[in-house]
This record gives sequence, C-alpha cells and structure tokens, in this order.
Amino acid sequence: MAADLTAVPSVEAHRETLDKALEAIRTREYWSPYPEHPKAYADGETAQAAFDALRGTRFDLDQPGTDGWTGGEVSPYGIDLGVEYPHPDVDVLLPAMKAAMPAWREAGPENRALVCLEILARINARTTEMAHAVMHTSGQAFMMAFQAGGPHAQDRGLEAVAYAYVEQVRTPGTAEWVKPQGKRDPLSLRKDFTAVPRGVALVIGCNTFPTWNGYPGLFASLATGNAVVVKPHPRAVLPLALTVAIAREVLAETGFDPNLVCLAAERPGEGLAKTLALRPEVRVIDYTGSTAFGDWLEENARQAQVFTEKAGVNTVVVDSTDDYKGMLSNLAFSLSLYSGQMCTTPQNLLIPRDGIATDDGHKGFDEVVGDLSAAVGGLLGDDARANALLGALVNPDVKARLEAAASLGEVALASREVTHPDFPDAVVRTPVIVKLDGAKPDDEAAYMSECFGPVAFAVAMDSSKDSVDLLRRTVREKGAMTVGAYTTSGEVERQIEEVCLEEAAQLSLNLTGGVYVNQTAAFSDFHGSGGNPAANATLCDGAFVASRFRVIEVRRQA
Amino acid sequence: MAADLTAVPSVEAHRETLDKALEAIRTREYWSPYPEHPKAYADGETAQAAFDALRGTRFDLDQPGTDGWTGGEVSPYGIDLGVEYPHPDVDVLLPAMKAAMPAWREAGPENRALVCLEILARINARTTEMAHAVMHTSGQAFMMAFQAGGPHAQDRGLEAVAYAYVEQVRTPGTAEWVKPQGKRDPLSLRKDFTAVPRGVALVIGCNTFPTWNGYPGLFASLATGNAVVVKPHPRAVLPLALTVAIAREVLAETGFDPNLVCLAAERPGEGLAKTLALRPEVRVIDYTGSTAFGDWLEENARQAQVFTEKAGVNTVVVDSTDDYKGMLSNLAFSLSLYSGQMCTTPQNLLIPRDGIATDDGHKGFDEVVGDLSAAVGGLLGDDARANALLGALVNPDVKARLEAAASLGEVALASREVTHPDFPDAVVRTPVIVKLDGAKPDDEAAYMSECFGPVAFAVAMDSSKDSVDLLRRTVREKGAMTVGAYTTSGEVERQIEEVCLEEAAQLSLNLTGGVYVNQTAAFSDFHGSGGNPAANATLCDGAFVASRFRVIEVRRQA
Repeated sequence: MAADLTAVPSVEAHRETLDKALEAIRTREYWSPYPEHPKAYADGETAQAAFDALRGTRFDLDQPGTDGWTGGEVSPYGIDLGVEYPHPDVDVLLPAMKAAMPAWREAGPENRALVCLEILARINARTTEMAHAVMHTSGQAFMMAFQAGGPHAQDRGLEAVAYAYVEQVRTPGTAEWVKPQGKRDPLSLRKDFTAVPRGVALVIGCNTFPTWNGYPGLFASLATGNAVVVKPHPRAVLPLALTVAIAREVLAETGFDPNLVCLAAERPGEGLAKTLALRPEVRVIDYTGSTAFGDWLEENARQAQVFTEKAGVNTVVVDSTDDYKGMLSNLAFSLSLYSGQMCTTPQNLLIPRDGIATDDGHKGFDEVVGDLSAAVGGLLGDDARANALLGALVNPDVKARLEAAASLGEVALASREVTHPDFPDAVVRTPVIVKLDGAKPDDEAAYMSECFGPVAFAVAMDSSKDSVDLLRRTVREKGAMTVGAYTTSGEVERQIEEVCLEEAAQLSLNLTGGVYVNQTAAFSDFHGSGGNPAANATLCDGAFVASRFRVIEVRRQA
Repeated sequence: MAADLTAVPSVEAHRETLDKALEAIRTREYWSPYPEHPKAYADGETAQAAFDALRGTRFDLDQPGTDGWTGGEVSPYGIDLGVEYPHPDVDVLLPAMKAAMPAWREAGPENRALVCLEILARINARTTEMAHAVMHTSGQAFMMAFQAGGPHAQDRGLEAVAYAYVEQVRTPGTAEWVKPQGKRDPLSLRKDFTAVPRGVALVIGCNTFPTWNGYPGLFASLATGNAVVVKPHPRAVLPLALTVAIAREVLAETGFDPNLVCLAAERPGEGLAKTLALRPEVRVIDYTGSTAFGDWLEENARQAQVFTEKAGVNTVVVDSTDDYKGMLSNLAFSLSLYSGQMCTTPQNLLIPRDGIATDDGHKGFDEVVGDLSAAVGGLLGDDARANALLGALVNPDVKARLEAAASLGEVALASREVTHPDFPDAVVRTPVIVKLDGAKPDDEAAYMSECFGPVAFAVAMDSSKDSVDLLRRTVREKGAMTVGAYTTSGEVERQIEEVCLEEAAQLSLNLTGGVYVNQTAAFSDFHGSGGNPAANATLCDGAFVASRFRVIEVRRQA
C-alpha cells in the first residue's frame, strides 16, 4: 500500500495546529490545543467501560516477531490489571522496523508531522480512557492522571513534533548553486537535501509518567523519520500500549507500515532495555528513570544518541517573602502533589536558622517549618481532598524510603496514612517533613541524596549566603530538575539567578499563586535544562531534535 | 573594563553580513563575503615580511598561567619556523577562562555574533599572512593555503556563527504567559530566557587544515557563550596562534576578557589534548584527526559534548558516463589536489571489470584505469603545475604509506618525485594508482582501510550492483566523508542515492567540470554527514551548535 494521507481527511486539517504550535514555541506564550477539562471529552461516558474491557485480555498489536506474551501489572490502587502484551523476538522485530523506514523518510517532514498530529488527535479523543490507564499504573489520582497523562502529555508530544518539523525544514529541499567565475562560465550545481533518520529509536518508559515523559522522545524520533520501539516500564505498560496501538492504526490508515511504531514489553527481570539499547539498529534512545541506568546508557549505548532524564535534588531557597501565606500554601501544594513522586518536586527547603522576614513579621526557623507543616496538614486534612491530590505510592520502594526518612532527623510533620474509599488496598500517604541542619556533616548525606517520594527536608542554614552556596553545590554535584526561591532581596535574587545561570538550572521565583515549581507547561517552559547532572536534555529545544536526523545532500552538475 | 561594542565602530556594521549569512544557510545558494583572489587583499605586499618576522620569535599572547615556552614546527617545505608559544599551566589557565564567561554570557547572542564577525574580519584582513602560515605547517601549496586556509575557512567560521546565533534566538528573551482559568483570574507569569554556555570549549586542531577544520568549532562555541581553548596540532600551531591573537585583540578592544580565547600549545609528547579533554571545566570538544583518538575522546570525555571528524574511506562508483574526458579530468584533479591529503579525497574507484559505457564507446577496466592514469600524469606533467596542485607531503607517515602502497597490487600509475624550485627539502609526490580486485579477499584489507595520502585504488568489480553493495558496506563499516558516482543509468543512480540516504553519506553525482567531490562550499554544502563512522557531526547544521549552550528560564509571578 502506498502512502496516502488523503485517506484520512482530518490529517490535512492539522496543518493549522502545527502552525500554531510553531508560533507558540517561538513566543513561549500560553497555548494548548488540548482541553484540560474532563467535560470536554466525549469518551468520558464510555472510558470506564473501555478500561474495564481491557483488563484480563491479550493486547494484540499484530506486530511481527511476537514470541509469547507477558504482563503482570498491578495497580498502585491494588487491582490486578491482568493484561498481557506481545513479547518481542528482537531479531525479527527490529529488521521489520528498519524495513518500514524508507517510505516514511520519503514522505518528508511535513507529512510526517501531520501523521504525528493525527496520532495525537486520536490519543486525545481517548483521553479519559488513557486517564484510567495512567492512574492504575502510576498511582496518580484520577484528575492528575487525566491532565498530566492526557492533554499535558499530548502537548509535550506536539511540541516535540513542532521542533522536529522546523528543524528539518531549515534546510530547503533543493537549491541551485551558481558561483561566478569572472569571465568564465559560472560553476553551477543542483543540490537536493533530504532529512534522513538515524535508525530505530528506543523509548524507555518510566513508571510515574509513562505518557508525559514518553511522548517527547517518541514523537521527536518519529517526526524525524525514525522508527520507534517503545519499551515501557513493566509496571506501566498499558498507557504506552494504547499509544502504540493508536499510532499503528493511524500509520496503517495513511498507507505507512505500522511497524514504524512497536511495543517491546519485557518479561519479569529480563532486562530488555539493555538488550535493545546495545543493538546496532538502535541509534536514538530516550530514557527517564534512575541515574544508575541513565549513566549506564550514556556510557554503553555508544552507537546511539542518548537523551536521559535522571535523578536530581531539587532545592527551594527560602530567604524572605512579602506573601507568607501564599508561600506556605504554594509550597504545601508542591510537596503534596502526587505524594512528591515527581522529578520536579522540591526536596530541600533551605531556611536560615535565624528565620526570615515576611509580610507577617519575622518568622523563626521552627515557626516557618511549623507553619509549613500546618499548611500541608490543612491541605490534606480532608481525606477526599488528600486522595485527590496525593494519589497512591507508586511502588514499595517509595513507601520504604518514606518510612526510613523519619529517622533522618527531627520530624516536623509526620506522614499519615489515608484510606481510599474506592480502593482499600491503595497505599496513600501524606508527606513527611524532616528537620536537618545544613552545618552538621551527619545530615549532609540525607540532603545531598535524592529521596524520591513524599519526603521533604527543612534544612537550617547559617545564612542565605550559605543557602546560595549549598544550592550551587547541590545542582553541580547532584543535578536539579527545578529550583525555587522566595526572596524580597534584590541581592539574594541576583545571587540565586547567577547560580542557576552558571549551573544551568531552571528557576521559579516567589511563586505564591496557582503555578507550582513542579509543573511546567509545554510550548513555554523548559522541563530540565540538559546542563546539570539531572538530565542531559531538556523538553523541548532544538538540541532535543537536531541530532535525531541527518541531512544528506546529493549534488549534480546543473 | 565594561563591554562596549561601540569602541570598535566596524562591529555594528557586521549585522548586515550576519543577515546575509542567515539568508545563505536558509537558501543554500552561493554566497561568501570573503573574496578568493589574492589581489583582493591589501596584505599581499606585506605578508611575506610579516610571516618572516614571526620566524624565530616568541609568540607572546599575554595569557595567564604561562609556565614556559614550547615550539618546534618544521615546515613540510623544509624550513624551520622556530616560533615558540606559551605553554599553559592548565590549573591557572582554565579558571581564568571560566572567570571570563559571565560577562560574555550577559552580552547576549547578537553582540557575541558581532564580535565574532569582527574577529573574522580581522583574520580576513591578514589572509595572505595566514596563507604563509598554513602553507608552512600543512604543506598545502600557496594558492590552496590561501583559499582553503583563508576565505574558505573564514566562511566556515561565519557559517558556524550564523547557526549559533539563530539557534540561540529561537527562544525569545522574555515572554508573558497568561493561562485562562475560566471565571477565575488567569494564571500569569513573566518568563526570562537566557542562553548560557556549557563551559570551556576545547578545539583540538589538525595538521592538514588547522584553520578550515578549526574555525567551525571555535566560532560555534564562542558565539554560544563558551570560552575556547585551542590546542593546536604540534606541527601546525602558527595559524591557530595567529587566530587566537586576533581574537584576544578584538575581545579586549570590545571590553571583554581576552581570556575567552586562549592557546594551549603542547610540549613534545606531552599529550595535552588528553589532559584538557578530561578536565571538568571542559564541556565541549571539537576534534579533527585519527579515528583512534576521536573514539578515545567520545568514550572518555564524558563530561563534554564531543564533535569529531575522524577517518573514512571515500568511494567513487564508476558505472558509466556521457562525458568520459570530463570524468577523467575531474577525477584526476580530485586525486591530485594537496596530494590526496584531504579527508574528502576519493580513495576507492569501483569500476566494473567488464568496463563501462561512455560517450566515447565502451571502455574496458584496464582502459579506464590507464586513461585515468594518463589524465593524472598529464595534469601533473609540468613541475610548476604539479607543485601548485600537490603541495608537500605533510609528514613522514604519509610518505611511508605512499611507498608501501605500491606493493599492495599492480601499479597502474607510479608516484613521481617532484622538485620544488624554492624549497629543495620539500617532499612533493604525485599520486599512485594501484589496481585491486574487489572479488579477492586478499585485496580487501587494502581497500577497506583508509590509506591517507596520495594513494588511490582502482578496484575491479564484478558489476555495478557489486559496487553499490561495497559502497554500502564501506560507508557503514568505515565511514565516508564523500561519495562520488558516475552513471548514466537511472536505476544505478537510484540505488546509489538510496545507499547514501540509508547510510548517511554526502553524494556528488557525475561531476565533470570545475567542482570536485573533495570540495565543499560553506553556507551550501554539508561537510560530512555526522551519520556514519567518519564523523559524528557535520559542518554545519543545527545539531552542530544546539547542544553547545542551554536555555535557562527564570519565571516569576506577573
């Protein structure tokens, strides 16, 4: 079957969406084509049934090289999904994917972008169903799974498509090159330029944000002509399996080989990511997860361009504020959202031991920590609201870290078990806040390590200057996805900005309203910087897409 | 001293040049601001004296951390340059370079670009002097040293500045982000975006093209805010020392710290490139040279973005032609220019053993090889023209390889010693053409290895299909900076194009006039593809600049 985009009439209409996305990444103003409100989605009525129908089934993708079935996802809310996925025979799957690439390359950047947008549109139409899948794999509360796993993830995918498109069309398809030679005839060449893919791109999914962290790499690679094999986290397969199924459906309908996008679900303990990462066909890798495996990929998958988001230690410098209540409620929300299981959640709150100046007068260290603890307690005091904000702990490791954290120092706010009305087996916990002393060497091991989960450290510092120094050291040595700061001092603000510029960390200053340090908006905010140890790439910039393809020139005498 | 670009009035005038460069990289049409003809340069009269005055002197750059002097360049033309350069105490030099960076970062992308263009303008004004320096370090003949070491190198530097500039200004300096919230007040943030450098960038120069291969990385890194330390090849220091001196002069005059650009000349056998490459301050590396050291850099300098141009095996597929004479003269020139000491010179000429169809009738394999040998012999028959084309062998290794090549197969054209009228100690040699058999396993070791220098292999193939297959294997396994092909068959052309698109190699088709497969023009042609083992980057595209800086965002509640 030859490629035929007119077979799917909606594809051509996406040109306008693409143009708007291109404009948005240029202005960085607010924009999104995907509504955030559940009521905007027609699948709201049927999604629960659709999700329930998936449970206990074989998720057949009709992929080549399936040598059995694997599964075993158990929801952090306690239910057994019971879905089985095809297990790949990599020696059959990867050659089939490579064979799919020439026609996709020939389609060119614009057609590839439009097909990607059709995939995103169909994912968008199933947002509510996807929300159930994300909720029951990541443990996110439903509304967060809906928004972060749905429209916000789709935004990030679209953003990547826009970057990929514009990067490929910077070089024209054709040029006439005529070089004057004085009195002699000019030299004249016709030059044809083609964006060519690297090869097969591997996306290694994560447990907490399978779609949000998976879509940028998936769509950046696909839009630049690569085939994409998706290796989901074994606890979060379903959202990416749904994604792959939709992508394959759109590719087939538009006349392309559906094997351009395949799923590679692994058997327990198989280590399929390592196997795939070292295959010569794999030339691009996107990964979100532990620093140890991210470093391993960077060191060993030398044949591939490797984009990693790893662990970091996020800091908030608390120096002073003219909106004490706003600061407390903003921080309380940031610490609570998804039980602190975001790579962007603050961990270390650096507070002068002599306290801070506020619009409500001077507040001592213990007072600030106490007021913050009260703010968190108030925010999560009602179980219904707590469940809606916290979600469930994604795995037993997080629970173990949370429980161990209480012994690291004086507990300012103890973690509390929350019962979920619908899912009695869900492990729902409020955050713990532990006091540490920035001047005590014994405490350093705690605040200089990532403690992923609902654990925050209130670190007493000798001065805000010391806070700034520790911020620099933390970013340089451990990396950071986010930095926050509260200050009314121009001098402290300047120092913190300088640290962030020199150590390459993204900074949120004096957030006291409805925007939180741990949230970034596609088309406007960069997620990570790619310039400190927490990640070697950012979502999304030119560097995230530029090396996923190469431009090949054929020149002929004119 | 604060930065003040108005101190150098010509700087602002470069905005027009930058705009033209931006337009050129977008259209890929012919353009250059730097004339190619020696008569266009005012320094033509004084350059010889200026070059002679440098000989036997200390080249003082007034750099911090100089712990002695080193030198020892001997021209491939046999004269001792006797120039001494500062040897760096790296522990002093690198911190001084880091300290220079914040003000350079603050200057912003446009001011950095304009200062870079002023540096290039001053290099351009000393093109003839630079030609002497390039000639007497690389062994290039004067006219080639003039053009390739002068305006063509400056073109590549300017091209890198243009790419760096446009990449940095894709994100605006500031954005107002306003997100509607239904009936509630919108969320509103002010966002400031700053392009920040990676750190110190290391340029590791090569012996054959110190400026042409050095300028892209140097200017790409400098224009993106990094400080640049230039570690020249010990046999080709002078051209880059002149370059560094000019850069430091312009930086100082415009109020920046001259330590943004420093030279790091090494003592014999010191291995300074390895030391610098592993320093934590060094975050970007540009390298041109052997595959072994390029691979070492990629594997070991993990803290840095590493851009390498290494060795490859360049192929010309000879299938058929409608301009036999044009093909022969074009190939003869390509094999002769700079004694084949270009990374882009063809090595393997794949010719069917049954011969080829031409506009002059069928030509057998031996006839084609004989006619090509005669064309090379004719081109280089006159010693004056031979010297003007060949230049001198750059080092004894090339001479040894040339001498050994004669034993690899039947010699179709023997190499000939050419006497240089002005430099009796110059080692000038014409190329050797050796016949090999593509079907003989014994010959494979020869044609599947790079034999850098004036050595070409005429490889007898069973068919053009076999040539296409060998082309694919060669590019995939050994890499290629260039691929050439001669064919009148649409089918063969299509197959060769497909190989080049799939294996990422730059293709020149049916060149029979005054453009040669081994030459690329800045702003239009890509040098290398970055997609095969010969190089991990191309000169120049978005990927060459995009990861040399990061964008840091500071967001505040509006």
